[in-house]
Amino acid sequence: MIGENHRPRFRAVSQEDRAALQEIVGEDALSDRRGDLEQHARDAGHFAGQMAELVIWPANAEQVAQVLRYCNDGQIPVTAWGAGSGLEGNAIPVCGGVSLSMTRMNRILDVHADDFQVTCQPGIGHKDLNEQLAREGLFFPPDPGANASIGGMIANNAAGIRTVKYGATKDNVLRMQVALADGSLIEVGSRSIKQSCGYDLLHLIIGSEGTLGIVTEATLKLTPLPMAVSSALAHFPDVEMAVEAVVAIRGSGLEPAALEFMDAHHVEMINRSEGMAMEEKPTLFMEFHHSNETALQVGLEFLEEICAELGATGYRATADPAERRKLWHVRHHSYEIMVRSHPGMNFLILDVAVPISAYPALIHAARERIADRGAVGYFLGHAGDGNIHIELPFPEGDERAYHAALALNDDIVAEALALGGTATGEHGVGMGKAHWMEREHGKALGVMRSIKETLDPKGILNPGKIFPQDVPELIHA
Amino acid sequence: MIGENHRPRFRAVSQEDRAALQEIVGEDALSDRRGDLEQHARDAGHFAGQMAELVIWPANAEQVAQVLRYCNDGQIPVTAWGAGSGLEGNAIPVCGGVSLSMTRMNRILDVHADDFQVTCQPGIGHKDLNEQLAREGLFFPPDPGANASIGGMIANNAAGIRTVKYGATKDNVLRMQVALADGSLIEVGSRSIKQSCGYDLLHLIIGSEGTLGIVTEATLKLTPLPMAVSSALAHFPDVEMAVEAVVAIRGSGLEPAALEFMDAHHVEMINRSEGMAMEEKPTLFMEFHHSNETALQVGLEFLEEICAELGATGYRATADPAERRKLWHVRHHSYEIMVRSHPGMNFLILDVAVPISAYPALIHAARERIADRGAVGYFLGHAGDGNIHIELPFPEGDERAYHAALALNDDIVAEALALGGTATGEHGVGMGKAHWMEREHGKALGVMRSIKETLDPKGILNPGKIFPQDVPELIHA
Repeated sequence: MIGENHRPRFRAVSQEDRAALQEIVGEDALSDRRGDLEQHARDAGHFAGQMAELVIWPANAEQVAQVLRYCNDGQIPVTAWGAGSGLEGNAIPVCGGVSLSMTRMNRILDVHADDFQVTCQPGIGHKDLNEQLAREGLFFPPDPGANASIGGMIANNAAGIRTVKYGATKDNVLRMQVALADGSLIEVGSRSIKQSCGYDLLHLIIGSEGTLGIVTEATLKLTPLPMAVSSALAHFPDVEMAVEAVVAIRGSGLEPAALEFMDAHHVEMINRSEGMAMEEKPTLFMEFHHSNETALQVGLEFLEEICAELGATGYRATADPAERRKLWHVRHHSYEIMVRSHPGMNFLILDVAVPISAYPALIHAARERIADRGAVGYFLGHAGDGNIHIELPFPEGDERAYHAALALNDDIVAEALALGGTATGEHGVGMGKAHWMEREHGKALGVMRSIKETLDPKGILNPGKIFPQDVPELIHA
Repeated sequence: MIGENHRPRFRAVSQEDRAALQEIVGEDALSDRRGDLEQHARDAGHFAGQMAELVIWPANAEQVAQVLRYCNDGQIPVTAWGAGSGLEGNAIPVCGGVSLSMTRMNRILDVHADDFQVTCQPGIGHKDLNEQLAREGLFFPPDPGANASIGGMIANNAAGIRTVKYGATKDNVLRMQVALADGSLIEVGSRSIKQSCGYDLLHLIIGSEGTLGIVTEATLKLTPLPMAVSSALAHFPDVEMAVEAVVAIRGSGLEPAALEFMDAHHVEMINRSEGMAMEEKPTLFMEFHHSNETALQVGLEFLEEICAELGATGYRATADPAERRKLWHVRHHSYEIMVRSHPGMNFLILDVAVPISAYPALIHAARERIADRGAVGYFLGHAGDGNIHIELPFPEGDERAYHAALALNDDIVAEALALGGTATGEHGVGMGKAHWMEREHGKALGVMRSIKETLDPKGILNPGKIFPQDVPELIHA
């Protein structure tokens, strides 16, 4: 379903605006055809679509800046679009105006191989980027799963399974060129790894979801591809013991490159769906990156000891690439497996994170909330970071069940906050978490708002996101 | 020498102010005695002292907030003071007013051992903190050398020798409580490692040198103490080959915990002063942290291969603690050795950083500039991060030589910027680098300024720093 635009203080795009914007980007780079508008109306999450009035595909930073200047003068909202793989409505143009699709700005501009850096445009997918970087023996570690665009990953500070070792997107960006609402282009950060020269505007922009500026170019920090990779899987009698193992593995110096948790219920569903026979217990999926084969062997022996000591009832490990793929298959494809085994269902994917010590309490509380409501939820998480996703299925088109899932989502967010955590570990605020901003940030929300007003006084950049009072009533897809 | 205060728009502290402030913090927590004022007038760098009118030692966050509220209402400048170990005049109260010494707020509030986190007050020294954390098998990795306070390290985004593996201060802080100019206390960040919930105010405050707010509490990310440590030293025929080795070691997956460069000239000075016989060639000092002894041995063998392949003319490595201390002694004590071997001299310590590929060009250019001016400079750098310090001696009290050193400093900063680097990698802007802000940041400086005006509209927080138009004429000590 596609809902009505929410347009508190913006004006509609006129034929005159359309002509002026076409003057900037050229005829083949803007469209108001319904098909194009629909393609930019929904992300991968559960929110109803909202159509922009115009989709624009800029070719370069100057065009982005000129479009912003025009729209700022004309009070027309502009919402940047990457790959549409967001989950919290972050890129939905809820107030209409322009959907600024960055997909044509998808080039690698420079590979600085000796510096372990790449400079690229924001529209390139991180998987496409990594495919090209592999030739240089380098990669950009953050991996949110889908082939998200680099610009979208920066906007949401995306993270994913490798964060436990390599950090989130914010830890892997060094400099950016950014177009501001008034049409100026600024440079933030530096190609120097060490930076302490003035305010950190780089990190102010990262995670701001296109509400402070639009990234037109980024220099990313790369990592050498590991010489040797091993994977392991371990089952534990209960969640507490699994998390104890997470803490021990993180404290061991083994530096896992992935440390993922799947609950017994999720394993059970996969066994059923895939005809597998994994132990139906809390399970850890792990990956390790080593500098050589000997280090790999030493690491695996050490890991096995730790898991045995901490009561693992099952353990498998391998360095063989084919075996590794098999071992991780159900983790990598857990979402598809779930969708396949739930025909006619939609999913709300919950994202919260807590300090690791609170992980068992969070999972315990979430299970209780789910049971209280007689619902079903599959737990899958980046345990090494205290981040959990719970997939909440609801029948397509069932408004009541959808609202029950939303309410359950809120119950669990409240638990995470009470445990010293955050309402969103990696999916961003968008529309879905805006109503939690005040509770999580208190007076700091006022500071965020004052910065927004300073950098975007007319509020044209991705309105209706992050700040609760701006977010329209949510309409289900 | 102690110079005149620069007070463009502030009012002097009156007896009435003194009484009101004493009401907030108590009689034993403020002083206008000359001895106290002098102790807070100079940092460890080369700038002339400037006295505050009042030193205040707050006991808690509420007192900090109340002092700020009072001073904001009264248009009295407030400059926070940590350990006085800064090098760019960052904490010198150049406009008078209050020097807010955080030294009494030096407690550890909570050790979250399972989360690898500690919550502490800003006045604690990082060495004191690490001494206490060692009991838990944890440490806070950033190490700027001196026993800087945590608050000062946050203010300057201090880094040091372990940044190549563990990041700078900004990479190791999760949440903070901050007092704003208007006397409000806000919380920024979260104890959750993963965070994507709104604007990153945490990183906006880190590195802002007390000009946007004063940190009253911080939760830091800790790292398990390494199970096994090895150290190595390698000499190379020229700078280019040494840097080639730096790139290769960083690309090897060995993940050095320190990767330090010392130029031949510096080695020569140490040999002379300490009666040693190191090869007088560009030298790398390295440290590696391992999860166990076998990994250590494997790592050292691999390292020796790399160094040999890349033309090292000398190589030593050890895992023995006493041997390690000996090997690193001259690096750790290089500053004292230099001071001791240059009686009657002061030093200007230059700090710039470039992308690693530009490191040889930077060193080459710096040597040329030094030779052009007939000067002397000792090179010592965090090569793994592209960060170099050059120690420029000048005779104490010799104004002409001091200004020549300042001019040389500027020559080399210009070279670093031309090579895509930054005017300061880890010492911050303070007074010393403010005149480079516009050149380095262009239009982004205007954005920084607008944020400053939004958060501190009366400009009471550490005035005379970062923004060039505010910095008074520099006066030599």
